[in-house]
Amino acid sequence: MPEIRRDPLSGRISLIAPERGQRPTDFSVSEEKVEPIRCPFCPGNEELTPPEVLRIPEEGPWRVRIVPNRYPALSPEAAPPAGGDEFFAAEAGLGHHEVIIETPEHQKSLERFSPEEVRLLFEAFRKRARGLLDQKRWAYLLFFKNRGRRAGASLSHSHSQLLALPFLPPLLERELRRAEEFYRRTRRCLLCELADREAHGPRLIHLSPHFVAFQAFAPRQPLETWILPRFHSPNFFSLPPEMEIDLARVLLRVLQLLEKTLPQFPYNLVFHLEPPSTPELPYFHWHLELIPSLTRVAGFEWGAESYIVPLRPEEAAAFLRDQNP
Amino acid sequence: MPEIRRDPLSGRISLIAPERGQRPTDFSVSEEKVEPIRCPFCPGNEELTPPEVLRIPEEGPWRVRIVPNRYPALSPEAAPPAGGDEFFAAEAGLGHHEVIIETPEHQKSLERFSPEEVRLLFEAFRKRARGLLDQKRWAYLLFFKNRGRRAGASLSHSHSQLLALPFLPPLLERELRRAEEFYRRTRRCLLCELADREAHGPRLIHLSPHFVAFQAFAPRQPLETWILPRFHSPNFFSLPPEMEIDLARVLLRVLQLLEKTLPQFPYNLVFHLEPPSTPELPYFHWHLELIPSLTRVAGFEWGAESYIVPLRPEEAAAFLRDQNP
Repeated sequence: MPEIRRDPLSGRISLIAPERGQRPTDFSVSEEKVEPIRCPFCPGNEELTPPEVLRIPEEGPWRVRIVPNRYPALSPEAAPPAGGDEFFAAEAGLGHHEVIIETPEHQKSLERFSPEEVRLLFEAFRKRARGLLDQKRWAYLLFFKNRGRRAGASLSHSHSQLLALPFLPPLLERELRRAEEFYRRTRRCLLCELADREAHGPRLIHLSPHFVAFQAFAPRQPLETWILPRFHSPNFFSLPPEMEIDLARVLLRVLQLLEKTLPQFPYNLVFHLEPPSTPELPYFHWHLELIPSLTRVAGFEWGAESYIVPLRPEEAAAFLRDQNP
Repeated sequence: MPEIRRDPLSGRISLIAPERGQRPTDFSVSEEKVEPIRCPFCPGNEELTPPEVLRIPEEGPWRVRIVPNRYPALSPEAAPPAGGDEFFAAEAGLGHHEVIIETPEHQKSLERFSPEEVRLLFEAFRKRARGLLDQKRWAYLLFFKNRGRRAGASLSHSHSQLLALPFLPPLLERELRRAEEFYRRTRRCLLCELADREAHGPRLIHLSPHFVAFQAFAPRQPLETWILPRFHSPNFFSLPPEMEIDLARVLLRVLQLLEKTLPQFPYNLVFHLEPPSTPELPYFHWHLELIPSLTRVAGFEWGAESYIVPLRPEEAAAFLRDQNP
């Protein structure tokens, strides 16, 4: 029977309509792989990208490299647009748009990284974030990863992206507002409450000492998976190393479970970090949202800003738990 | 240079980043066509769909047919879900999900309809809307069309869809709230203001006696096109026949211009109608939004609920105007 759900964090509405009796493995998608003749992210081809803004380690062969995006959505030198008024509001597209090349190995996709390699990625995020935040120009840093063509990736060599934005993203604004309202009513952090509940519920897929991974209650896509800290953690960039390693392990476990269910599945991984101007909020903390690209954004989604999802998250979770070694 | 724009109606943010120098024709996408052995929407195969809820004409061979969706996202008989509480809000997926089979001709896509055939479609919408609204159970009727696999259509025979919803879609809620605020400040209908401005601006693509078609100022996709009445028209279902024919002509013109630019382009067409409970608002009226499926919804879009669009709407409009016979 169809069900209407409201996501406790964002307030988004999802119609859960598993009428077709589809199993998690039925959502598998196949994509043609288009490989460039010379991959700009491979060692030896560094001159094909703009000059790097960060590398780890600083000397010798690099393990992680951050470079400006060749086709940036924002630029630190953007000029104010000619048109625009109060009605048609337009401003300069100021910001940074960068690419994090996650590994020198062309064939190695993220789920095959070691925990230490994933931790190194978080270290690169943190170092670059510090450099950008020191500029005191940006309202938000959005880290995300697109994997597979259907999920918007144009190159297969493992990479993620970073946008330094001059505005707070509307989704974050709404999450913060709803979390603040919840805090005012209950004196609890909404994300702590969510982590507590999901740690013992039917949508759980993996529990580690410090983190919980679960199927989203009101997802936008089948198998949408969130990872939350199990303790109040308002500042992603101050995680101690042992927690970074634990987070790396949980992320790898999640990716491996999904990969086993849907080989080579396209996905977007989004880091919902705290706004840098308010790093120690009592009512909000960072978390990760992994959104597989399995069903299409279509008329209903564009028209209602709500989602039709043909798989019950509880069924997806039970399936994924069964895959767990 | 990139530019940050805010849509005057929805408040959505778009990053317009035409850095790659792409022309409208560069966004062309190709799709494999998968045809069922027996098309359930073709005359003679009527038993492959659930029994029809409306047909035009009532006797003889049908020209338009409305049937329940075989895999409905909502159902008038949905039962309350077992789980759900104040935190994880869930309710019965009550509603109707129907398919409007727009023509008996399997090969005839919407842009090749005659104006009278499109008007007949509006008549079917109106008649079915009346039937559903008489039930006094539904907060909103969402009419939309998905064309092409990338846009979520699973069958190629021309059809659109209708969802009778027990809630007001969040996007409509926001449009209504913003339009009301604008009215309070200016005593003008925001959509009348928008139509007036676009009728003489750089994003215009077609002007008829009663309607204006233009490229959206802050689109979600390249070539996103809106059609607005040029007069205050708070009730779609009370349009006089000569205006329905004019609207049909404008819609056909828009589809033909886009088809010429991007043959067989996948798209979603969404009817933003007024909420049925408040059909005569002084500050809002219905309009059409046509969203081609050309770029991917990816990490930035999911993470920020904002959009990166690699084509300037003004450039798209100039190109489309040049195609105009």
